[in-house]
Amino acid sequence: MSSYQVLGTRPVRHDGVDKVTGRALYGADLRLARMVHGAVLRSPHAHARILSIDTSRAEAMPGVFAVITAADFPPAPPDKMVDFGEGEMLLSSLRGNVLAAGKVLYVGHAVAAVAAKDAHTAAEAAALIEVEYEPLPAVFTTQQAMAPGAPVLHEGLRDGNVADYIRHELGDPQEGFAGADLIVERSFDTASVHQGYIEPQNATAHWSADGRIQIWCSTQGSFIARDATAAVLDLPVSQIRVTPMEIGGGFGGKINVYLEPLAAMLSRKAGRPVKLVMSRREVFIGTGPTPGSHVRVKIGATNDGRLVAGEAWLAYEAGAWPGAMVGPGTMTVFACYDIPNILVEGYDVVVNKPSTAAYRAPGAPNAALATETVLDEIAERLKLDPIELRLRNAARPGTRRADGPRYKSIGCVEVLEAMRNTAHYQSPLPGPNCGRGVAIGFWFNAGLPSSATLAVNTDGTVNLIEGSTDIGGSRAALAMQAAEVLGLRAEDVHPTVVDTDSVGYTGVTGGSRTTFATGYAVHDAAQAILAQMKERAGRLLGSETVDFAAGKFSANGKELTFAEVAARLEAAGGPVTASAAVNPKGVGGSVAGLIVDVQVDPETGKTDILRVTSVQDAGKAIHPSYVEGQMQGGTAQGIGWALNEEYFLDAQGDMRNSSFLDYRMPTALDLPMIETVIVEVPNPGHPFGVRGVGEANIVPPLPAVANALYRATGRRLQRAPMKPEVVLGF
Amino acid sequence: MSSYQVLGTRPVRHDGVDKVTGRALYGADLRLARMVHGAVLRSPHAHARILSIDTSRAEAMPGVFAVITAADFPPAPPDKMVDFGEGEMLLSSLRGNVLAAGKVLYVGHAVAAVAAKDAHTAAEAAALIEVEYEPLPAVFTTQQAMAPGAPVLHEGLRDGNVADYIRHELGDPQEGFAGADLIVERSFDTASVHQGYIEPQNATAHWSADGRIQIWCSTQGSFIARDATAAVLDLPVSQIRVTPMEIGGGFGGKINVYLEPLAAMLSRKAGRPVKLVMSRREVFIGTGPTPGSHVRVKIGATNDGRLVAGEAWLAYEAGAWPGAMVGPGTMTVFACYDIPNILVEGYDVVVNKPSTAAYRAPGAPNAALATETVLDEIAERLKLDPIELRLRNAARPGTRRADGPRYKSIGCVEVLEAMRNTAHYQSPLPGPNCGRGVAIGFWFNAGLPSSATLAVNTDGTVNLIEGSTDIGGSRAALAMQAAEVLGLRAEDVHPTVVDTDSVGYTGVTGGSRTTFATGYAVHDAAQAILAQMKERAGRLLGSETVDFAAGKFSANGKELTFAEVAARLEAAGGPVTASAAVNPKGVGGSVAGLIVDVQVDPETGKTDILRVTSVQDAGKAIHPSYVEGQMQGGTAQGIGWALNEEYFLDAQGDMRNSSFLDYRMPTALDLPMIETVIVEVPNPGHPFGVRGVGEANIVPPLPAVANALYRATGRRLQRAPMKPEVVLGF
Repeated sequence: MSSYQVLGTRPVRHDGVDKVTGRALYGADLRLARMVHGAVLRSPHAHARILSIDTSRAEAMPGVFAVITAADFPPAPPDKMVDFGEGEMLLSSLRGNVLAAGKVLYVGHAVAAVAAKDAHTAAEAAALIEVEYEPLPAVFTTQQAMAPGAPVLHEGLRDGNVADYIRHELGDPQEGFAGADLIVERSFDTASVHQGYIEPQNATAHWSADGRIQIWCSTQGSFIARDATAAVLDLPVSQIRVTPMEIGGGFGGKINVYLEPLAAMLSRKAGRPVKLVMSRREVFIGTGPTPGSHVRVKIGATNDGRLVAGEAWLAYEAGAWPGAMVGPGTMTVFACYDIPNILVEGYDVVVNKPSTAAYRAPGAPNAALATETVLDEIAERLKLDPIELRLRNAARPGTRRADGPRYKSIGCVEVLEAMRNTAHYQSPLPGPNCGRGVAIGFWFNAGLPSSATLAVNTDGTVNLIEGSTDIGGSRAALAMQAAEVLGLRAEDVHPTVVDTDSVGYTGVTGGSRTTFATGYAVHDAAQAILAQMKERAGRLLGSETVDFAAGKFSANGKELTFAEVAARLEAAGGPVTASAAVNPKGVGGSVAGLIVDVQVDPETGKTDILRVTSVQDAGKAIHPSYVEGQMQGGTAQGIGWALNEEYFLDAQGDMRNSSFLDYRMPTALDLPMIETVIVEVPNPGHPFGVRGVGEANIVPPLPAVANALYRATGRRLQRAPMKPEVVLGF
Repeated sequence: MSSYQVLGTRPVRHDGVDKVTGRALYGADLRLARMVHGAVLRSPHAHARILSIDTSRAEAMPGVFAVITAADFPPAPPDKMVDFGEGEMLLSSLRGNVLAAGKVLYVGHAVAAVAAKDAHTAAEAAALIEVEYEPLPAVFTTQQAMAPGAPVLHEGLRDGNVADYIRHELGDPQEGFAGADLIVERSFDTASVHQGYIEPQNATAHWSADGRIQIWCSTQGSFIARDATAAVLDLPVSQIRVTPMEIGGGFGGKINVYLEPLAAMLSRKAGRPVKLVMSRREVFIGTGPTPGSHVRVKIGATNDGRLVAGEAWLAYEAGAWPGAMVGPGTMTVFACYDIPNILVEGYDVVVNKPSTAAYRAPGAPNAALATETVLDEIAERLKLDPIELRLRNAARPGTRRADGPRYKSIGCVEVLEAMRNTAHYQSPLPGPNCGRGVAIGFWFNAGLPSSATLAVNTDGTVNLIEGSTDIGGSRAALAMQAAEVLGLRAEDVHPTVVDTDSVGYTGVTGGSRTTFATGYAVHDAAQAILAQMKERAGRLLGSETVDFAAGKFSANGKELTFAEVAARLEAAGGPVTASAAVNPKGVGGSVAGLIVDVQVDPETGKTDILRVTSVQDAGKAIHPSYVEGQMQGGTAQGIGWALNEEYFLDAQGDMRNSSFLDYRMPTALDLPMIETVIVEVPNPGHPFGVRGVGEANIVPPLPAVANALYRATGRRLQRAPMKPEVVLGF
C-alpha cells in the first residue's frame, strides 16, 4: 500500500477542459493589435553558394512591411560557443540555420523572410525575392559524406564532414572477444524520421521601441527560446520575454529556435508585431528530424549466456550543422547491460539535410536496434529465452557504463522480470506468420535547473507558478507533488505556466526532466509553504511547535485545517508564498521494455501489430495515466519509425513525402490498444522517487519489431523502416 | 548626502515606452476568440420599486446571446458580511449595487445586462427589456435624508437613513471650550465629485466549462476584484483568475467591482467571453463618486494661539448603500493638531445617489475644508500668521488622535516649516483682487498584505513579479527598491504585474500603500535573493563568508560582480529566486500642505489660480518625479473640487452634466505649473522610511483655496465648489 494520498492517483488534468473545449490558446490563435504576418523563403537547393539576394521587388510590393536576410543579423564570431544549459554549440551554426549566410546547406534552408499585411501577401512577396545560387554537389548519407573526396559542407571541421568523434572504452575489448564462445556482428541503417507533432512551429514577436522584445511561441522551453534568440540577436537575455503558448506536441523538436529570431527581426523592421506560422512542408524540410544512421554492433558471449565483450561503431547524420545525437547513441548502446569489455566509437557527420533535432531519447533507438537485434540472435543461437539472456546480463546498481558512470539505482532487472511475468509474454502466439519480439532500452533522467513559486489562497487552495511548458500532463504531475506535501487534493492546486519574466529560470520540457526536476522545485517550494503555514498555525493555536498530519495543523490539543489557517492569514501575519529553485543531478535513468506480436502477410509484406505491451520503470508514477500515456505514445512513435516512417529524398535532396498524407505515421487504426505495465524502482535522487518517463519507451520498438519480424518471417532485418519490400527481402 | 545609490534618483519608468507608443494594453484593447459584447440597462428612476422585468423581447432579438437580471445571481443572506481586507461590508449591498434586486436606488442603478454579437446590438437589446417601476419619493442630501418622515431607502438601518454613527472623544470638550478665549464655529457643504479617471470601467470575462472564470479588467486591485466577484457569485476565490490590464487612472474609484460579476454571469449564459465597457455617462451615474457632505466644526483657542478644544459634526452621503467615507472623515478632521479636548460625531447617511467610492484620501478633504477654514479665521482674529498658528499646535510624535492612536512619527512640523520657508510663501502677492491661502492635511499609510517574487537572470538582471496594478509609476518605485538592495541599476530590474494566479496575495493599489507595502515585500524578497547570491558567490570564491558592497561579492581577497555570479548560477547550484509576503502595520501617515495664490475677477467671480506650491512628507522619496507627480495630481484634483466640480442633479435625481464637456475638471490651461517641495521624515515602519504619498495632497486644496478666496474677496466661503456665484456671494 502506498503511503501517499495524492501521488499515484488519477485526477483530471487541470488543463483538460481548456483543451477539449478549444479554450486553450496556441500560438496560431494569437491576434495582436497592428499585427502583420510573415513568410520565409527557403532554399530549393541541397547545397549551393548564394551569389546574391535582391529583395527590391519584394520590398516594393504594396502591403509589405519588412524584408530581412542574414545581412540584417549581427555577425557571429566564427568560434564563439553558446550554451543554453543543454550543451555547447557554435553560435555560427545556430545563426546560420536560422537564416542562411553565404551558402545554403539543405533544401528548405531559410534564406530570407518577409512581413506583410497578411500571410498571402507575405508569401507572394517572398516569391519575388531573387536569389542567385551556384549549386554545389551534395551528400545525403554518412556513407556519402565520409567517402574520400566527398563534397565538404563546412571548412574547419574535425575531418572533412566528420564534426565529432567520440570513443568510450571499458576493460579490454580485444581480450574480451578472445574469451567469447560466440560472436555476432551486424550492421544496421535507419532513416531520418520526424517527430511529427501536430502543431507546426510558430512565433509572434513584438520588438518594442525601448528595445524590449516579447515573443509568443510554441516551444518546449521558454527560457531556451529566450536565450537562443538573444544569442542570435546578440542581446542580453533579459531584453526578451518569451511567453510559451500551449504546445501541440514537441518530442524534442521544439527545443531549437527557427522562427523566433526571424519574427523578432521582422518586427524590428516593421515596427509592428509579426506572426510566423510554418506549413507542414516547412516543418518537414525546415526543422530538425532525428538522424539517419549507420551502426555496427559486435557482441561476444560465452555458452552459458554471459556477455563478455561489446563493440559498437556509430555514424549519425548531423544534418547541415554539427549535431548532438551520436553522443547519447554511444552512451546508451550498451547501457542496459553489465559487459566487462567495451569499445564504442561514434561519428557525428554533417550531410545536406535539415539540421537534426532531438526526438525522444535522441540517438538511442538507432543504437538499440543494433544491440537488441544482435542479442536476440545470440539468445536464439544459445537457445536461451531472450529475456533470460538479458536478465543474466542486466545492468544493476554498481554496473559501470562504458562512458564512465556507475549506476546508483537502475530498474533493469525489475523491468525484465515484469516483462517475463506479463500474461502477454506467457501467452501462445495467435496464428501463422506471427512472431513475438522483445527488446529493452535505457534513457537518462536529465537534471537541469527548474524553479517554482507557490502562493496560498484564502480559500485554502494554492497557486502554482511554473515555467515548464506542459506537453504531456506536467501541470497535473507538478500540482500533485505540491498537493502531496501540503495535504491537499490535486484540484486544490492551480498550476499556471508563465512567461520568462514571471518565474525563476527553468530548463526545457525535455530530457525526461519536468516531473522530476520541476517537481523537485515544487516539492521544495511546498516544504517552504508548509513551514510558513506551521508558523502561522502556531500563532493561531498559541504554540511554538505545531504538528502537521493528514492535512491538519495541531498543537495544544487543538486542530486547524489547512483551509482554516489559509482563511486567517491576514490576521496571522500576511500572505504565504514561497519560491524554490533546484539544479538536481540526474541519477535515476529509466529502463523500458517492449513485447510485440506481429503478423506478416507473406504475399504483400504488410505487417500488422497484433499485441503490444510496454513495460517501464517510472521510479514513482505520480499520475499513472500520464505515465501510461508516455509509454503508449513512445511505443506508437517507435512502431511508426520501425515500420513506415522515413524522409524520402529525391536525387536533388528534396523531400518528396512532406505531408502527413505521404509521410505515413501510425494512426489509431494501425495499432491495437497498447498495454502498459509500470514498474516502480524509486529514484534515490528525487524526494518522491520520480524517474522521468518521457523517452525510454521509444527505444525498444525498433528492435522489438525487428525481432518479432524475424520470428514471423525468418529474416533478420537490418534496415528501418521495415516496410514491405524490406520485410520481403527485396 | 543620501547613502542610497538608486533611491532618490529619477530613472525612466519601465512601462514608459509601452505607454507612449500605444503598446500598453488596456481592457478595451482586449480581443478574444469568440468574444461577444455586453450592455447594461440602468434605472431612469432615483428610487422605485421594480414590479416586473420582461426580458423576452431582448432574448428573442437576433444576435443576442444572453440576458441577465438579479434573478440569475445566487441570493445573498440578508446579514452576511464580507471582507476583502479593506473592511467589512454587507454582501447584499455589494450584490445589490452590481444589479438591482427589488428596488432601484439611484438613476443609473444597473437593472439588467445583455450580451450580443456587438456592442450596438447589445445596447438595442437592452432597450427592449421592459421594466415596470413603481416610483418612490427620493432623497438627495444628508439634510433631506435625515429629516423626520424622510422616505427610507433600506429597512433595518440604524436610524431611518442613517447607516452608521461614529463618535470619538478625547479629554473633556465642554471644559476645554470653557477655557477658550475665542471660539469659532462654522458649517460647510461640499458637493459630490467624481474621480474622473480617463479610462472608463471595463471587464471581459470567460466562464469556462470547468467552472474556472478568467477576468480581464481595469482595477486598482486584482485580488479585491477576484474576491469581490467571488463573493457576488458565491464561489471560492481560487475559481477566478483576474488579470489586471493597464489602468488609465483610478484614484480610489476602481477598487469596487461593477462590471466584473456581470461579465462573468453573461459569459456563463452565453458560453463565450463577454466584454463590457462603460460610456462616460455610465461612469458618472453608475460608479462611485465621493460623498457630498455637511460638516460643522467648532474650535476654541486661547489668546496666545493654543487650541484647547475642538468639536466636529460630520454627515456624509453614503449614496445608495451604507458607506465608508465618514469614518476617515472623523479620524482626520483634527488629525494634524495636538488638541487636548475633542468631540467628533459622524453620520453615514444613505441617499438616492450612486453608491460612493473611495477618492484619494476619502472623507478627509470634506473635513479639512471645515477645520482649516476655521483655523484661518482664528489666526486672523488672533493676528497670527496662519502657519505660525498651525505650528504652535502641530501634531508631533506622541500626540494622541481623537480616534485613539498616538503618532509614532509624524512630519507635521517639518511640512509647516518647509511651507514657511518657500520662496512662494515669502513673496508678496502679485496684485489686486489676489489672495493667498494655506492649509494642511493628513492621510494614513495603509499596510495590508503584499507579495513579491524575484528571479535572477543569467545576464545579471533581475525579474520582479508583483501584483500591484501600476497607476502612478509603482513599477519603477518597486524595481528601485530591489535595485537598491542588490546593488543594481533600476533598469536592471524588470518588473511585471501579473494575474492573481501568478503571485502571492497583494492588496489594492490604494491607501497610499503600494510603494510602502509592496515595496516592503520587494525589499524582503531582495534580501532573500542577496542571501542566496552570497551563498553562491561563496561557492565560487571558496569561502563560507562573503561580503557584499557596491555591487560586488568579495571573499579571500577575490571579487565577483553580481552579474558574474549570475552568469555562473547553474554551476553554483542552480537558479536564484525568492518570494516574500508582508502585512505591515501602517505607522507612517503623511502630512501635506498647500500654498495657493488666487486672483478673482470681481465682476464675474471667476477665480484664476496664479501660483501653487505643494509640500508633502514622503518619508523617503523613492522616485522623486513620481512623488511630485502625485503631489501635482492631488493638488490639481483638489483645486477642481474646490472651484468647479459637482454632480448637478435635476429634481428627479438625474445627473445633467454627465460628460467631460459639462463636468468641468481643470485642464492644463486652467492651472499654473504646480511647484513641489518634498519633505523627508523617515517612516520608522518601513526599511527605507517610505511614506505613502498618493493621497494627503488632495486634502489641503479645498481649504487653501477657500482661505485664499477670503483674502481676495473678504468673503468666508462655506460651500464647495466655490464657483463664481458662490464667490460673489449669490
